[in-house]
Amino acid sequence: MFAETLEADAVAIAAHLDGVLSEYDDLPVTRAMRWATDGGKRLRGFLVLEGARLHDVSRDRAIWPATAIEAMHAYSLVHDDLPAMDDDDLRRGQPTVHVKWDEATAILAGDALQALAYELVARPEVGGAEVRAELALTLARAAGAHGMVLGQALDIAAETAGTPLTLDEITALQAGKTGALFAWAAMAGPRLAGASAAPMRLYADALGLAFQIHDDILDLEGDVEKTGKRLHKDEAAGKATFVSLLGLDAARKRASSLVEDACDALAPYGVRADLLRDTARFVIAREC
Amino acid sequence: MFAETLEADAVAIAAHLDGVLSEYDDLPVTRAMRWATDGGKRLRGFLVLEGARLHDVSRDRAIWPATAIEAMHAYSLVHDDLPAMDDDDLRRGQPTVHVKWDEATAILAGDALQALAYELVARPEVGGAEVRAELALTLARAAGAHGMVLGQALDIAAETAGTPLTLDEITALQAGKTGALFAWAAMAGPRLAGASAAPMRLYADALGLAFQIHDDILDLEGDVEKTGKRLHKDEAAGKATFVSLLGLDAARKRASSLVEDACDALAPYGVRADLLRDTARFVIAREC
Repeated sequence: MFAETLEADAVAIAAHLDGVLSEYDDLPVTRAMRWATDGGKRLRGFLVLEGARLHDVSRDRAIWPATAIEAMHAYSLVHDDLPAMDDDDLRRGQPTVHVKWDEATAILAGDALQALAYELVARPEVGGAEVRAELALTLARAAGAHGMVLGQALDIAAETAGTPLTLDEITALQAGKTGALFAWAAMAGPRLAGASAAPMRLYADALGLAFQIHDDILDLEGDVEKTGKRLHKDEAAGKATFVSLLGLDAARKRASSLVEDACDALAPYGVRADLLRDTARFVIAREC
Repeated sequence: MFAETLEADAVAIAAHLDGVLSEYDDLPVTRAMRWATDGGKRLRGFLVLEGARLHDVSRDRAIWPATAIEAMHAYSLVHDDLPAMDDDDLRRGQPTVHVKWDEATAILAGDALQALAYELVARPEVGGAEVRAELALTLARAAGAHGMVLGQALDIAAETAGTPLTLDEITALQAGKTGALFAWAAMAGPRLAGASAAPMRLYADALGLAFQIHDDILDLEGDVEKTGKRLHKDEAAGKATFVSLLGLDAARKRASSLVEDACDALAPYGVRADLLRDTARFVIAREC
């Protein structure tokens, strides 16, 4: 049930993105935008759609912020992969944007995808002006120098400093780098409904951290064929990760315990949130 | 009167930006954001403030979108200056962000400044939800692959193609590259007031094009000390510009005629818009 829903939602989000992106002129930049948003699990968009379903928000409204967060995530990957950043040539088993086109196209495609994300949440189809303004404001905060960019900046600062981060510092870094978009995605559903987003925020905070710990484990133990990206990068760079600091066993246990926390946070929703509980379990079992 | 108001507004916008940026953690990225937003004429922010004044919108509200458009403009300059783009080492007489820090910091600082722009227009201080959602939506469209990024993409495509652009193509390119943000800035005031933005749109379209033609003239005839940036770049790159296509005299005449159009577009406001008429005249007389 979970796997089928995740897959069906990914297809729906892809179709919606295609529709939006097909409105652009055909240029390398817009082709690169399509390339960058193609594939992936679309876990953040799925969280938007599931959070919306849980709050009886129509799919027709929720598909917009679901697509928005995938555009935002795609932009962050395109810029992260640039030579000046992580210098990655492989993503989802395909050449990254700056490899397939060039750096200028990758910078611009990322820039345009970020703009697109705000456009998608501010469109009239999303609902009343109050919720659209709130989604735009919270998305900007999640993406900016208090959120995702802060996480990336802390990451770069750590590399420059040369001293490995502590567990608290890595947790803060990841709260920005991956946590902020996860939290926004999970909270979009209740926000669309005008309901409290507190349970979904708790859920997402635990889920985001579990996701990142599992990413660190995959970087160490994953299969390049399955993950579709280069591995052992943190190790090679001498970067502190959850695994290097906790050890593999303790990292696994911490991720499992976070998944339990995430499931517990959904208590107010009862069995209706079982699919989100499956999502949490999937996050630490996935092979890519 | 015009020069004093432009200067006073620039100071007010700088102070407001400082307040906003001082909330961030002290990191190279946030220092780079401050660096990138420092200096300049702040013409776009001035257009927001003047458009607001013309529609009796309070300064306390208008300062937010004025600051937003300056953050957006600063982001576009930081990314434009990157080695993979225009590769500029000098801006406003100072080293560009990637020269003073590094490319990764410049990419991230630009990314965060774009996010900040949306945050600033979506904040409650700006007004009702309807206008905040509208400002966010229109700003995203102005910045994205239908607006500013489209202009930059057309610019890159022209360089790659190797065939010089026609006058129509350059006009379309500039409508995206500089025109979209000018138009948004000029229309923010009437939007804040819930008034028709049509006269300000006409004004901005003519103004933006005149601005760009004058930029082309400055690139050819300007003083590197006064402009604070490298000159003769278009010529060296063999790029078609308004000057190379029209010739210097005809380009000047076209800019003058556009300034007249811009002034005429303000007829509905009568003498109350005289400062905006002075702005149009300034745009083609400026030395930087």
